[in-house]
Amino acid sequence: MRNIFIIGAGRSASSLIEYLLNKSESEDLHLTIGDLSAELALKKTKGHPRATAIAFDIFNEQQRKEEISKADIVISMLPAHLHFEVAKDCINYKKHMVTASYISPAMQELDPLVKENNLVFMNEIGLDPGIDHMSAMKIIDEIRSEGGKILLFESFCGGLVAPESDNNLWNYKFTWNPRNVVLAGQGGAAKFIQEGNYKYIPYNKLFRRTEFMEVEGYGRFEGYANRDSLKYRSIYGLDDALTLYRGTLRRVGFSKSWNMFIQLGMTDDTYTIENSETMSYREFTNSFLPYHPTDSVELKLRHILKIDQDDIQWDKLVELDLFNPKKIIGLHNATPAQILEKILSDSWTLSPNDKDMIVMYHKIGYELNGQKKQIDATMVCTGEDQTYTAMAKTVGLPVAIAALQILNKNITTPGVQLPLNKEVYLPILKELEGFGVVFHEKTGSYMGYNPNNVAS
Amino acid sequence: MRNIFIIGAGRSASSLIEYLLNKSESEDLHLTIGDLSAELALKKTKGHPRATAIAFDIFNEQQRKEEISKADIVISMLPAHLHFEVAKDCINYKKHMVTASYISPAMQELDPLVKENNLVFMNEIGLDPGIDHMSAMKIIDEIRSEGGKILLFESFCGGLVAPESDNNLWNYKFTWNPRNVVLAGQGGAAKFIQEGNYKYIPYNKLFRRTEFMEVEGYGRFEGYANRDSLKYRSIYGLDDALTLYRGTLRRVGFSKSWNMFIQLGMTDDTYTIENSETMSYREFTNSFLPYHPTDSVELKLRHILKIDQDDIQWDKLVELDLFNPKKIIGLHNATPAQILEKILSDSWTLSPNDKDMIVMYHKIGYELNGQKKQIDATMVCTGEDQTYTAMAKTVGLPVAIAALQILNKNITTPGVQLPLNKEVYLPILKELEGFGVVFHEKTGSYMGYNPNNVAS
Repeated sequence: MRNIFIIGAGRSASSLIEYLLNKSESEDLHLTIGDLSAELALKKTKGHPRATAIAFDIFNEQQRKEEISKADIVISMLPAHLHFEVAKDCINYKKHMVTASYISPAMQELDPLVKENNLVFMNEIGLDPGIDHMSAMKIIDEIRSEGGKILLFESFCGGLVAPESDNNLWNYKFTWNPRNVVLAGQGGAAKFIQEGNYKYIPYNKLFRRTEFMEVEGYGRFEGYANRDSLKYRSIYGLDDALTLYRGTLRRVGFSKSWNMFIQLGMTDDTYTIENSETMSYREFTNSFLPYHPTDSVELKLRHILKIDQDDIQWDKLVELDLFNPKKIIGLHNATPAQILEKILSDSWTLSPNDKDMIVMYHKIGYELNGQKKQIDATMVCTGEDQTYTAMAKTVGLPVAIAALQILNKNITTPGVQLPLNKEVYLPILKELEGFGVVFHEKTGSYMGYNPNNVAS
Repeated sequence: MRNIFIIGAGRSASSLIEYLLNKSESEDLHLTIGDLSAELALKKTKGHPRATAIAFDIFNEQQRKEEISKADIVISMLPAHLHFEVAKDCINYKKHMVTASYISPAMQELDPLVKENNLVFMNEIGLDPGIDHMSAMKIIDEIRSEGGKILLFESFCGGLVAPESDNNLWNYKFTWNPRNVVLAGQGGAAKFIQEGNYKYIPYNKLFRRTEFMEVEGYGRFEGYANRDSLKYRSIYGLDDALTLYRGTLRRVGFSKSWNMFIQLGMTDDTYTIENSETMSYREFTNSFLPYHPTDSVELKLRHILKIDQDDIQWDKLVELDLFNPKKIIGLHNATPAQILEKILSDSWTLSPNDKDMIVMYHKIGYELNGQKKQIDATMVCTGEDQTYTAMAKTVGLPVAIAALQILNKNITTPGVQLPLNKEVYLPILKELEGFGVVFHEKTGSYMGYNPNNVAS
């Protein structure tokens, strides 16, 4: 029997655990599921005889070493900054390891040791990062194997609410970490390349320079630029590509409305508001507007943001109850960003029957045999319920599949790695299709930005 | 003979040195002027027999100790972060010290030692901080001595170009450190109080929420909020004031235009542009605009900032040569803010015959004997030439006067301090009047923001 130690039984672990439990008989697996909350871990075992739930504290060194030493492979679903302790023990006890997180510099430094011990440390194998790498590299490798040259690479991903649960004016609900949504785009200008030109977008314009795209059967979406469009330039082998752009998807109109919060200063996370605990939503809104003894908060806001009274932007703000004098924030010494997150959570929390939806979109332009072409690849995955969400499936399933592939010695190249090699991504993408994670590719004329590069 | 050691012979030291040289016979003074550039120091002595110029390096410990030990008082006109080394030696050799800089936490920690040695370390005695403290405290103390209560305190200061030299569309030239102008307002929301309400303005709206004010004989100015309006709340004794606002003055229209740079992202100092050395001004501008194969940089910018072609904003940008494809930036790996500073310096550098101007404006509302009133105090000081600028006069003269007052034992209270006491500010303000630094006070009805607080 092979032992898999899964650390963290939170939202993203549901589909992961279900997949491995379903395979546990045929593959002769035993799962140990550790979480700070033994109750949560127990719930995820669903009483399966091949699963054990334990209360597990990553900072309890003795317990950590003990559990890791008993495993054949370790899956860490912890927050990224906690992987490192696990990784060191995995090296000591010679265990493979899988995470869905970005490779941190500390993790990368373990590479020689990992290789020396002939171990596989597979990272960035969730959704984004994860499925984005694998699905993009599949198309890129195919184009290259035919002798093609990549001209343009754009990649977008968004965690959204499914159409059947999309019932607010923002066409958005929180399906993942709300804090990341509120802070999105902060910390520096977005940088990318268009037709060989470096382009920079400051935070205050980020949500005003979006790109539209259509997904068949799902309508239009918009993408705003990530800060790190050039991050995978070299490891994807795209140093010569003229256009590199990575972004986040929302329903059309979200970004323009989100920009209101940025303009007001409500997404700021750098200072706290003293009286936030007893402040009303209305007072919070008013604190970003000029003082006036008689003008209403409503009129002041409409004036400062230049919103006509019949503009849908206005209805979106009213829907969030931003002008309510009776709702109290109730957060002690909170930052504007924390308060905004609280206010949005009132309106944007998934209801028990709501479903989420993941959308991914790659645009890859290339030149092959003198012809310029473009592949548009799209994937839409909808959640089943609030446990087996689209997010849980797309993050957890690739992790689970990769772990089993490593156990079964189908993935053997040692080292700290991400899933860029055909031997890794092909079987995983294939198996994901069985779970509804399917990419639809459409080849057409190159639609790049420069007519000199576009096929006539 | 009393020895005054002046460290730093830069722009702000001209009037300071001149004042002390003029007093050197009657007051029996000798000045030692130390600067990294002995040439600059020598120039400032103007061949006066009671002055010695030396090449002086603050990091040369032996020289530093030697010169400080020979002095009776030390004036440090160094950048603020370099005062601390001087201060420690001043304590060791029991010398008084004067600076025009904000009291750093490190400097503040020396207070017990300074007191123990019965020394006066006078700081924040330039223009802003300096004359602002003294002139505001004079009015506040007068109101209080009559039994009045302060309701509102607003204070503004600006370094501008004199009307006779004001010949560009921006009504602005660099009269001080250009880098500070480019970075103004960055690093966090501006915070202040209006009628008892905390108000916050994010960077992207800072230059759009200005306040206008008129100075008799000089026309209208606008003020944008400083980040630190509450900084002197307690030390001015204004904990109960309903309105506290500190700001920077510009000519009306400057802020609206400056906001264009913020919106484009040109004031960002957090990342560098790789090819900045060989980039043209036009390419720099274009890097903040979306790519388009045929649309001009001009039209893209007009569109993104919504500027009509007959709008003066447009002429202001053209005046700066932002669209010139031939002018090369020539700065290696520079940040957008550094590049913008370079571009602005082409247009905003003072010509040899240009004069600068300092404007200060205090609005102080108060209640006295059941009546609400307001004092508006304004001061305008114009430079003589490019050496004895208004900035040099208003920064350097209070420092020089204070140094002499300390030498003459008119200021004796020991400790690390700023000029908030009547015994300090009254004689200094009086003497400054002889140099044209005169405040004009006007008492009128209280114009606060809340009609309930305004006298009918």
